[in-house]
Amino acid sequence: MKSKYMGRKARLTRREMLGTGALAGVSVALAGAVEAAPRAGIPDSWDEEVDVVVVGTGFAGLAAAIEAAKAGASVALLEKMRTPGGNSIISGGVIAAAGSPMQAEEGIEDSVDSLYDDMMKAGLHLNHPKLARIVAEKSVETVQWTIDELGVEYRGLTHMGGHAVPRSYSLSAGSGSGIIVPQLNKLKEMGVEPRTRTLLKHLIRDAEGRVVGVQIHEKFKHPNMDSGKPKTIRARKAVVMATGGFGSDPDFRMLQDPRLGGDLDTTNHPGATSEALREAMNIGCVLIQPSWIQLGPWTSPDERGFGYAPHFVQGVSASFGLWIDTLTGKRFVNELADRKTRADAILAAGNKCIAMSDAEGYAKGSAGRPTDTLDKMKANGVLMEYATLEDMAAAHDIPLEALQATIDTFNQSVDAGVDSDMKRYFPNNVGKIGTAPYYVVRLSPKIHHCMGGCGINEKAQALDVVTGDPIPGLYVAGEASGGVHGASRLGSCAYADCLTFGRIAGQNAAAEAG
Amino acid sequence: MKSKYMGRKARLTRREMLGTGALAGVSVALAGAVEAAPRAGIPDSWDEEVDVVVVGTGFAGLAAAIEAAKAGASVALLEKMRTPGGNSIISGGVIAAAGSPMQAEEGIEDSVDSLYDDMMKAGLHLNHPKLARIVAEKSVETVQWTIDELGVEYRGLTHMGGHAVPRSYSLSAGSGSGIIVPQLNKLKEMGVEPRTRTLLKHLIRDAEGRVVGVQIHEKFKHPNMDSGKPKTIRARKAVVMATGGFGSDPDFRMLQDPRLGGDLDTTNHPGATSEALREAMNIGCVLIQPSWIQLGPWTSPDERGFGYAPHFVQGVSASFGLWIDTLTGKRFVNELADRKTRADAILAAGNKCIAMSDAEGYAKGSAGRPTDTLDKMKANGVLMEYATLEDMAAAHDIPLEALQATIDTFNQSVDAGVDSDMKRYFPNNVGKIGTAPYYVVRLSPKIHHCMGGCGINEKAQALDVVTGDPIPGLYVAGEASGGVHGASRLGSCAYADCLTFGRIAGQNAAAEAG
Repeated sequence: MKSKYMGRKARLTRREMLGTGALAGVSVALAGAVEAAPRAGIPDSWDEEVDVVVVGTGFAGLAAAIEAAKAGASVALLEKMRTPGGNSIISGGVIAAAGSPMQAEEGIEDSVDSLYDDMMKAGLHLNHPKLARIVAEKSVETVQWTIDELGVEYRGLTHMGGHAVPRSYSLSAGSGSGIIVPQLNKLKEMGVEPRTRTLLKHLIRDAEGRVVGVQIHEKFKHPNMDSGKPKTIRARKAVVMATGGFGSDPDFRMLQDPRLGGDLDTTNHPGATSEALREAMNIGCVLIQPSWIQLGPWTSPDERGFGYAPHFVQGVSASFGLWIDTLTGKRFVNELADRKTRADAILAAGNKCIAMSDAEGYAKGSAGRPTDTLDKMKANGVLMEYATLEDMAAAHDIPLEALQATIDTFNQSVDAGVDSDMKRYFPNNVGKIGTAPYYVVRLSPKIHHCMGGCGINEKAQALDVVTGDPIPGLYVAGEASGGVHGASRLGSCAYADCLTFGRIAGQNAAAEAG
Repeated sequence: MKSKYMGRKARLTRREMLGTGALAGVSVALAGAVEAAPRAGIPDSWDEEVDVVVVGTGFAGLAAAIEAAKAGASVALLEKMRTPGGNSIISGGVIAAAGSPMQAEEGIEDSVDSLYDDMMKAGLHLNHPKLARIVAEKSVETVQWTIDELGVEYRGLTHMGGHAVPRSYSLSAGSGSGIIVPQLNKLKEMGVEPRTRTLLKHLIRDAEGRVVGVQIHEKFKHPNMDSGKPKTIRARKAVVMATGGFGSDPDFRMLQDPRLGGDLDTTNHPGATSEALREAMNIGCVLIQPSWIQLGPWTSPDERGFGYAPHFVQGVSASFGLWIDTLTGKRFVNELADRKTRADAILAAGNKCIAMSDAEGYAKGSAGRPTDTLDKMKANGVLMEYATLEDMAAAHDIPLEALQATIDTFNQSVDAGVDSDMKRYFPNNVGKIGTAPYYVVRLSPKIHHCMGGCGINEKAQALDVVTGDPIPGLYVAGEASGGVHGASRLGSCAYADCLTFGRIAGQNAAAEAG
């Protein structure tokens, strides 16, 4: 990124002309001059020194730590919560790969361009094209890395909303723990263990603009931002910020989107707050696209957080069932549309919609899952079972005749092989709806992913707000960065983004001259 | 705005405990401590001192300067370009007021709530509710202020797109100069003259976080950011940043919306660049909603910038004519919808649309305008005249039969008093289309307004990115601020916003203890 605005450089010019050494610590008053000064002071002595400081232990942070350690760097891996994993460990367990071996086995044609196009379409073309393309280009390599390097296991391909074809590898573990745990094991082998309850308080930038270390609070007790004991760590090479989004932070959410107040639920863990992002802005990193905050369309008001609902709503109902507006008895959106389209459609329908399937649809959509999932969802109260369509309609105040007409039309579409109503993609094994019992999950969108964040370049370097140039010594990866997903992130693209740019950040951090 | 993230305050606590005086200039190394440090150094001596520094000479800056001077403050009024006025002086000349005397005269019922609702609807409810409400509540007072205090003259009410009723006062001058010139005259009376060719280079914030002055470049030559002679000005009370948006800055535009590259034209003046906003971020002001960048729907590819097109497209065709997709011969959008709806519709139609009217429509829509406007638009090549509909259709490759059907339907709607096609508001004097000659302007959206900017509160105080609290000594008003308009600004609401919050900023700046 080139820019004609040379604020910091202009400030440095005078130093450079006079020789930095001669000026160190000396205040010189020239007419009209403003002395260069760091944002946060550099301590007289550091409490600790390492090559690379990685902040955050989700997919991106752990991937960065693995790559940095592999390159021979000493790594301090910081995590503010009591346990590592961030949002990643509780996420849905699918990762996009375009043109993968598993697609080849199933005869599914796919390409980097197709994934890229899907990402750009969902992102309303607000995606930074070069960043989105890197994620698409490296998607197969990234999945393969999790298999070869980490021993991650996948149980099959899923067709996620907004994707042209099934291309998302489903973790056998059923959640992001299927990657986080192997990442942590790998790091342990390499002698790197996450330092939990360690808060990033300040990024420390020197007079030349380089990030040279961090101030942290050890024994931090979330969410008390003043808790813990201060300590400084010098980063001889670089700091990698992989601190995630701000989905659990109503204050910062509402600055960017005043609709998203504290009354709305979120799928995020409680630590998904903004303080690290705020500190990055505070030391001059540019913030991009922060008002694009994604609501997940596959959550239920009948449980807290992410919950069980997505297993049924996304895994079963979106491919093998129907989403119904209870006021009309009709479908109201392509059940496989991108997240924003679906969340907006649910809200526009007054938040009175359900996802449903019949017994056969449930069997197809839940193949490979633990068999007790159904019982868990029923026990939890999030999934309801009905012996007949009549019972289902009565329980949810759906006009029965309209509902039956909707199902009849859908069944004709299944015969024809084309969804006449919503143009939804039909998997080969899609079937007619009509086998009791019927299952229902009520729908209510929840705050899920922050598309905006720190501006970065293709090397995962943070960009300076004044110059647009990279900030030496600072890398950002994962949800803390902005630009990859534009207006709306497609499902299973966060895994690809976080792991790909986490690795890039770790490799480049370790390669800094230091 | 309350926040639990207390970064700066936490840093100050230790100072406060030990006593600021004892620590001044002394570096104390405590274990794990990071010394508080200002963002940009404070000069050993200031070149000049005033009470209030106002940066920018559009509506907001001049309104702030007037209020500050009126309150007895000495004011330095800075403008980086050769002439004052910014985008304001070349803008379209309409200001919204809800429940105004002129509406009462015409029997138009209106209310603050109605304007507020229109703003929120266009803004997709991303508007900061309290800020939007202030603009709506004060809209009549603000217009009255321009009349009583400045002697501004208006020639009538206009019905702008997205507004429920005609509520926008049209300047007799036909452009924003009708307010800017009286503002400059008023300031001259008070002994304040804009210092042109004076660039804001740095905002200077002290160790306690207060903005205490600026570094500027005198004899600045736009766009050479290194040109001019550095000088510092201490602001004893406050700095008001009214530096406008970044519509003419492809680098910053593309960070926030990569589609908006340098190949796209803009209605903005060449000085609408991002360096002041970048500097505000650089010293810790929070950036909100920067990716919402409005394209004006009423511009033409046949001239540069704002041009003449809006006079016809908005003033004539949107109320008394039709907007036609040349590929289909049909209307494609409510011609009085909000800007985003219309710009998106034009782009979605492949940017191949026209605005048209017949001779009677032209006469009605241009009543009160200088009579040579038509000749100027024809000479400029932006407006084309045709003796018959057939000629018009042939010249623009419009299917004639479909075009005639569209006009027939419209004429039936005029008889019925209701727009059956697009539900457009019909003014009382709307007429059927059919009187030769016919006029056409081709449509192509241009970058017009940046909705995002510095986060502010109801007092126009800039908000700190770390704490969310006001930054002492820094006010932001006008397009440099964010939040009033949300996702999309309604026409004529920028005048109300800039003048209202400019006045608020100036009043509060002058009232600071200093």
